[in-house]
Amino acid sequence: MLLRLGRRQFLKSLLATGVVFRLDRRAQAQSDPLPSWNEGTARQSILEFVERVVRDGSPDHVAPAERIAVFDNDGTLWLEKPAYTQLVFALDRVKALAPEHPEWRGKEPFEAVMKGDNEALLASGQKGLMEIMAATHAGMTTDAFADAVTDWLATARDKRFNRPYTELVYQPMLELLAYLRANAFKTFIVSGGGVEFMRVFAEKTYGIPPEQVIGSSGVVRFETGPDGTPRLIKEAKVEFVDDGPGKPVGINRFIGRRPIFAFGNSDGDLEMLQWTAAGEGARFAGIVHHTDAEREYAYDRDSSVGRLDKALNEAKAKGWVLVDMKQDWRSVFPG
Amino acid sequence: MLLRLGRRQFLKSLLATGVVFRLDRRAQAQSDPLPSWNEGTARQSILEFVERVVRDGSPDHVAPAERIAVFDNDGTLWLEKPAYTQLVFALDRVKALAPEHPEWRGKEPFEAVMKGDNEALLASGQKGLMEIMAATHAGMTTDAFADAVTDWLATARDKRFNRPYTELVYQPMLELLAYLRANAFKTFIVSGGGVEFMRVFAEKTYGIPPEQVIGSSGVVRFETGPDGTPRLIKEAKVEFVDDGPGKPVGINRFIGRRPIFAFGNSDGDLEMLQWTAAGEGARFAGIVHHTDAEREYAYDRDSSVGRLDKALNEAKAKGWVLVDMKQDWRSVFPG
Repeated sequence: MLLRLGRRQFLKSLLATGVVFRLDRRAQAQSDPLPSWNEGTARQSILEFVERVVRDGSPDHVAPAERIAVFDNDGTLWLEKPAYTQLVFALDRVKALAPEHPEWRGKEPFEAVMKGDNEALLASGQKGLMEIMAATHAGMTTDAFADAVTDWLATARDKRFNRPYTELVYQPMLELLAYLRANAFKTFIVSGGGVEFMRVFAEKTYGIPPEQVIGSSGVVRFETGPDGTPRLIKEAKVEFVDDGPGKPVGINRFIGRRPIFAFGNSDGDLEMLQWTAAGEGARFAGIVHHTDAEREYAYDRDSSVGRLDKALNEAKAKGWVLVDMKQDWRSVFPG
Repeated sequence: MLLRLGRRQFLKSLLATGVVFRLDRRAQAQSDPLPSWNEGTARQSILEFVERVVRDGSPDHVAPAERIAVFDNDGTLWLEKPAYTQLVFALDRVKALAPEHPEWRGKEPFEAVMKGDNEALLASGQKGLMEIMAATHAGMTTDAFADAVTDWLATARDKRFNRPYTELVYQPMLELLAYLRANAFKTFIVSGGGVEFMRVFAEKTYGIPPEQVIGSSGVVRFETGPDGTPRLIKEAKVEFVDDGPGKPVGINRFIGRRPIFAFGNSDGDLEMLQWTAAGEGARFAGIVHHTDAEREYAYDRDSSVGRLDKALNEAKAKGWVLVDMKQDWRSVFPG
């Protein structure tokens, strides 16, 4: 509510001074920072918020060090349908490693993987996903795991779009990340996904370095290898699930200060958005609403992947920015 | 300190223009980046390493994104004698909260605190320290805890030096941190200390932002308060001990890539130094050896705080840089 009133008052003051039009013209003149965003409330809210916190002398000015922006990954920065990309990777690993693991036979969720029963898997949710990921990576060094992800990403392709997964990222969100960084924001990923999976591609794909990627993780053990060199071994045990209430906990653990800008797309992002919006001063809370079955997918309240129900209600009640993919995005994927 | 920070920011601002190396050359010609370091092997090793990894065309050149430098805190960046500063804070908290906790009576380590038996406490080591810290902070919000630390630091003083703890930092190490950042290194703290304790002063004292501070931590719970606003509650349970083998694990968890530069002072830093030194390419592993009983303290193999025994042997065997505080440091503390 405060956020909405603040925006209204700000817009009024700009309209009164006519600055809003000058702003727009300047933005257009000096090459639009968000060319894949159509004119509309979402685009305008982003531009106005950044102007508010960045402009010297603005009552809502925020020091660069405090310009922390957090983004969910699956469904917010890249495709999450028909299944989480990391799950697709894990399934391929399970199938590849199955011959070495007879004990997986008849045991869920592994049985479902070998049967290709995705619905049963998705029903197990983020935790089930992390169990599979941990199990499929047990006994590997962190370096060997990163190599496995790199190799997989180089060849795996989404069936519907027939493109590598790192090309199925949202062009408007790439522009938003770059626009925020150009305004001295520090951009972070805060995702339920496996942190060591995302770190392999986040820097090249999003311009977000490994140390700014927060995610779910498995236990890692330090040991000295037979050749006398130290190594880190990934154990088959879930350590932290960075989803739902785990997101503000992960933000506190890894960043240590409250973001002023947060973007998500599902109920798993609700607490992160609440935590961000509840801070003092100017705050931005945004949600990508998947409304475009033609160019991507249309889903929300009834989806097993990326369900958006409680957070959709709260976004409307609190005046958070709802991005209508079909209306607000000129293009969805790069190229 | 203000002058030093000013220079760092000036260098940082020029980094963007890509002339930092030329400027650094001039800076070295004009003003010594390490004025508190005496001529000697330690100082020379630092200057030569940075030159090796920064100079364009050097066979050991390292891209700025990979210039990760990690520093232990207690005994490496600031005083750790006669007891860890965070322990002094925790003891003050225990005494202040004791009346509300009759169950602490007759129970160690709390009994020892109320009796002022420091030796018994130090014997319990980093884990015992974390138990006390967790217990003394249970049921507080993360914000309330940060306020408590801020208030304590504003008034607490070390008895021997009669100075605030944030002034009992090592001037030569402050210069080293600034010198590395001026050369596009990203500096991190990797300490057994409580992460939420260090984050309160690390930015102002060391120029290291909260998101680059890694330490031990207690469990934090997300909840909605009675006023309907979300909050993070610190629970009385140790979550992670960032000490010994926990340091490379913490580096992997928080940074996600291997440092090329590491500095410590005790056996608790051994695995971090091994992990850093074992990487490919140019690597720097340094140890602060406390040899100056007059200006600070002299201790190593037999000390209960900051014992340096195994790591001292390995430093000599592997040719790591050993800083002799008495010989290598022109001054110890600022001012």
